[in-house]
Formats: sequence, C-alpha cells, structure tokens
Amino acid sequence: MEHQFHEWLKSKTKTNPSLTQQQIPADSYSVIAGIGDDAAVIDFAGQPLVITTDAIAEGTHFRLSDRPKNPDSVSLSVLERIGRKALAVSLSDIAAMGANPIAATLSFQCPKFLTIDNLKALYDGAGRLAAEFEVAIVGGDTNTWDGGLVVSSTVFGTRNNDLTGWSLDGAQDGDVIYVSGAFGGSIHGRHFDFEPRLRLANHLAANYQINSATDASDSLTMDLMAIAKASGVSLTIDLNAVPISEDVQASQETSALEHALSDGEDFELIFTVAPEVAIRLDQATKLPTPITKIGRVSVGSPGLRDLNNNPIPIRGYEHQG
Amino acid sequence: MEHQFHEWLKSKTKTNPSLTQQQIPADSYSVIAGIGDDAAVIDFAGQPLVITTDAIAEGTHFRLSDRPKNPDSVSLSVLERIGRKALAVSLSDIAAMGANPIAATLSFQCPKFLTIDNLKALYDGAGRLAAEFEVAIVGGDTNTWDGGLVVSSTVFGTRNNDLTGWSLDGAQDGDVIYVSGAFGGSIHGRHFDFEPRLRLANHLAANYQINSATDASDSLTMDLMAIAKASGVSLTIDLNAVPISEDVQASQETSALEHALSDGEDFELIFTVAPEVAIRLDQATKLPTPITKIGRVSVGSPGLRDLNNNPIPIRGYEHQG
Repeated sequence: MEHQFHEWLKSKTKTNPSLTQQQIPADSYSVIAGIGDDAAVIDFAGQPLVITTDAIAEGTHFRLSDRPKNPDSVSLSVLERIGRKALAVSLSDIAAMGANPIAATLSFQCPKFLTIDNLKALYDGAGRLAAEFEVAIVGGDTNTWDGGLVVSSTVFGTRNNDLTGWSLDGAQDGDVIYVSGAFGGSIHGRHFDFEPRLRLANHLAANYQINSATDASDSLTMDLMAIAKASGVSLTIDLNAVPISEDVQASQETSALEHALSDGEDFELIFTVAPEVAIRLDQATKLPTPITKIGRVSVGSPGLRDLNNNPIPIRGYEHQG
Repeated sequence: MEHQFHEWLKSKTKTNPSLTQQQIPADSYSVIAGIGDDAAVIDFAGQPLVITTDAIAEGTHFRLSDRPKNPDSVSLSVLERIGRKALAVSLSDIAAMGANPIAATLSFQCPKFLTIDNLKALYDGAGRLAAEFEVAIVGGDTNTWDGGLVVSSTVFGTRNNDLTGWSLDGAQDGDVIYVSGAFGGSIHGRHFDFEPRLRLANHLAANYQINSATDASDSLTMDLMAIAKASGVSLTIDLNAVPISEDVQASQETSALEHALSDGEDFELIFTVAPEVAIRLDQATKLPTPITKIGRVSVGSPGLRDLNNNPIPIRGYEHQG
C-alpha cells in the first residue's frame, strides 16, 4: 500500500503542481524537486535546501530483543544502534542527492516501558553519527504511548548551487551504471551499522557529472528499477559484476547473487554517468569507497535485463531487524 | 519522562555546544536557536531557516473511533482532521517563532487495516491546510505496521533577518503578557480544528517588538511556566482576565477557569511585550485574532502568581482525542 500511496502522491502533485510548486509565499523560495526523489530540494533564498525524512519502526526495521517486562533487559547498545540507524537512513538520502547534511531533527515515539536511560541511549547513538558527519541536532519531539518504538529523522542539507543531475529521472541512453560497496545480507547487522556514503557522494559531486543517483534501501533491483521507471530507460545489468557482500549467507533456496539483488537496506549509492565520465571514473584511485561498474543504460521500456537480454526479477525484502 | 528527557537534552547541548552549535560544516551555516524553544533557527546562507517537528499518535492525540475490523468504518472525515492536526501543530510552532512556513514533510506510520483511501484522507486533510497557508508539501515517509497510527510533520519556514525576541527566554521585567483567542475545552473538537495563529504572528512580527513568545500546547499554565523558567522571571496573572473558551464544559469538579488554565491543545499564542509596546497594542484595531492582556512579568523566582500573590498551580492535561 505504501507504494500505491506514493504513486498517488506523485500523480497528485503532478496534476496539481500548486501543491508543491507554486504555493511558496515569496519569490525567493521555490521547489526544485518535490515528492518522488530521495529528498526534496528547495531554492531557499538562492541556496539549495535539501530535505529528507524517514521513520524506522519496531518490528519493521528493528526489534527490541524481546519486549521486556523489566526495562533493564533492553540492551543499551541495541538502542544506540536504532538511534544511529534512524539518522543514517536519512543521511544516505542526502548523499544520494549529492548534498551535504547540516542539521537534523529526531523524534521518538516510545513504548511506556522505556526508561530515561533508554531514551538517552537512542539519542546518543544518533548523536555520535551526527558528530562524525558534522550534523547539528536542532530539535525533535518525544512522546510515550502504549505502542511500539518509532524513531523519525528529518535531515536538512545543501549542495552546490550549480549541481545538476543526481536525480532518479536523470539516466541517459548510453550511461554506465555504478554501485558503491557490496550488496546482500545486511540483516546480519549491517542494516544498523552501515556508513552513509556522504564522503563518496561529496567526492563524486565535486569531480564528476552524475546523471542519476539513488541509494539502495529497498533492494538493488527495486532501486535500479526506480531509476529505470523515473528515467524511462532500460537497464542492462552484468550479473557477474554485482558486488556481493561477505555478509551474505547463501542457502539452497537463495543464492548469494539472489541475496545481493533482493535483500534490502544496503544503503549503497547507485548512480549513472555518461561513457566519457565513466572512463575517468574507472581511472580514479582516490575514491573514499570502492565502486563497481554493473551495467548500462539504453533506450527501451523500463526494466532490468541481464547480458542475455533476459528480464531480471524485481524483488525486495521485508525488513526485519 | 518526556520532560525529563527534554531537560537532559537541553543540558547536554548546553554543556557540549558542539552538538548543536559548532558542527556546521561551512561558515555560512550556524545554529541560532536549538533544542528548547518552539522551533530551531539556523542561519542558512544568511537567511533564517526555522524548523519544527511534531508527531501525533493514536490514543494520545486522537482516536480512530473504535479500531475497526472493517476498514470502511474508519470515518474519512476523522482521518482528514487527524492529517490536518499533524500539520497544524507544527504551523503553530512556526507562528510562535514569528516566522512564516514555506514547506513541510509528512510521515505516516500506519496500522495495517488502513486502506489507500484512508491514507489519501489523512494526506488531504493536511493538504488543504497547507494550501490555505501556502505551504508546499515536499516529501515524507509512509510505512505500515502492527501498531497504531502516528503522523509526523516537519515544517520549514523563514522570518525577517532582523527579527529579535520571540523566544521562550526573552521575557523582561515589566513586560505585559498577552494571549490570543480563548482557552479550555479543546477536547470537544477544537484540538483538531484550531487555526494556527500565523496571521496574527505575522502581523505582530511586522508591527511590534515581541520579547517572548510560545504557543499553548500543553496548557496555559504549563506554557506560561515555560516562559517563566526560560526567562528566569515571575509572572503575575489576573485570573479574571483569562479568556475562557465557549467550548469549556464546567462541572462541579472542574470550574471553567480551571479548564482554561489546565486543559491542553489550545494552540493559542502567548507572548510578552514591553509596557510601551503594550500601549500601542491595546489601541490596535486590525489584529487578525483578538488578544487579551492577562498579566505582567516581574523579577522573581520562576512561577505564576495571581493578583493576591498566591501561587497558581501548574497543571496540564493528558491529551485524549
């Protein structure tokens, strides 16, 4: 249903642009990118303001071990990792826009059994990541209730005024497709501890023209498909080139490659560049994170195909912490 | 516990200002006001960026009638009011900073039984209020889960660069205390349908020096106390002057005045001005919302006292939609 609602929102704001485009009060503010990309971009008095918001929820994105009768049994380190993750997923979106984070708000919807020390642990987990990336935590909202834990983050950043590309819909015929890092098996811990690819995004934004970009949150195939659909292009993927994480635990039912293609929450960058940029990128030696060339963009109906022109199934994973 | 956590956060960011003050990456960004006021203010490339975030939750801030087995029994109009409220509480915070809203994000944490039409109703309720105040809804995050409904909003605005005051800690000895509208009984419907006092705040910001300001979300006495504590002053309140809403249903247990002092979610402006500004304000004829003078600020230990110098109890209400 989330997907269906998202499509409705996009169509609504397309057919009624006043919802996102025109109702900015003063001439010096306008929406550059609204609902549908990794983050929104607003022209804020001449400077791009990049905004993203994410919520992670108990049972969907993490578990609080067993729900304890005794609050002491909620591990502080689990809470720190949850707080960290809430901020990290938003920072990953900021990276996927070629932007730098500046400030964040964090909100906690808390089960009643959580203690003040539990809350502090949640906050400290986010706080350490914020400090690492020089993000100021400027506010939030904390409420307790009978329900489960939800942690929401909103991150504000900026990027160079003359930056172009970095959008879901920017992939061009002939572009080369790259990914950072490796995919699959994040469920074994990396979905908490992943590094938002801000350093890589920064380096790329400063040195290369990136046509399209997103971060892999749903799954490699789902997020590639998001680029294909938004850009109206076909993506040919060299399945032998897909970098598979050491975290993958392959089984008879699911091969390592299938995990890499369909597991979620890798939070790696996926991006496309023109062939001439790809030549420079392949010679780059100082990238903060390794990248891998996994395919090509071509004209065609939106979809993923392997080198034999067979369709690649689009599969995602139900996140479970 | 929320209060205790909030105090910890404020002390933490005071003793370690790097958390909110110094870790802005570039010289052109700095935090003007962080955790502790109605909203944060960031100097964003020379222009104030005002940020606030709020979450409202099922059972705390509203009810979905009875939790239905049949989703058709969730009234669309209830959902529209919930969506509206989520945005309205943040707009009220923006007003309390003397700012104008520009854009918002909305996030929905949804029970699994909600339908796509239910989601659209939530969104449309917020969307209509956004249109009324020329706020662009630029993004959000939607997830379903086994838990209850939580709607989060984050609103971004701006205000005049040379605006001063409008802070919780700005009340001065001799200031006159004003409130907009009337108090109490919001539980009978107004907690959904209140008007964020943006028009009034705008008019005040353009024409009068406002020393301190907040919006009444917890209760009149609690939010007055927040100004008293932050400013380190004593507030003398003329209890006969407190405007009592027609919504109040007094009982033998609770007088109308007690409701006005202790009910929550009025979302009226509370503000203080110097005596010479009060003279001008008392003569004002074109205010968008009526205001009432209810007391005076004086030197003294933080607290509220009536005209007979008796302490006024600080009471808040557990919100229940």
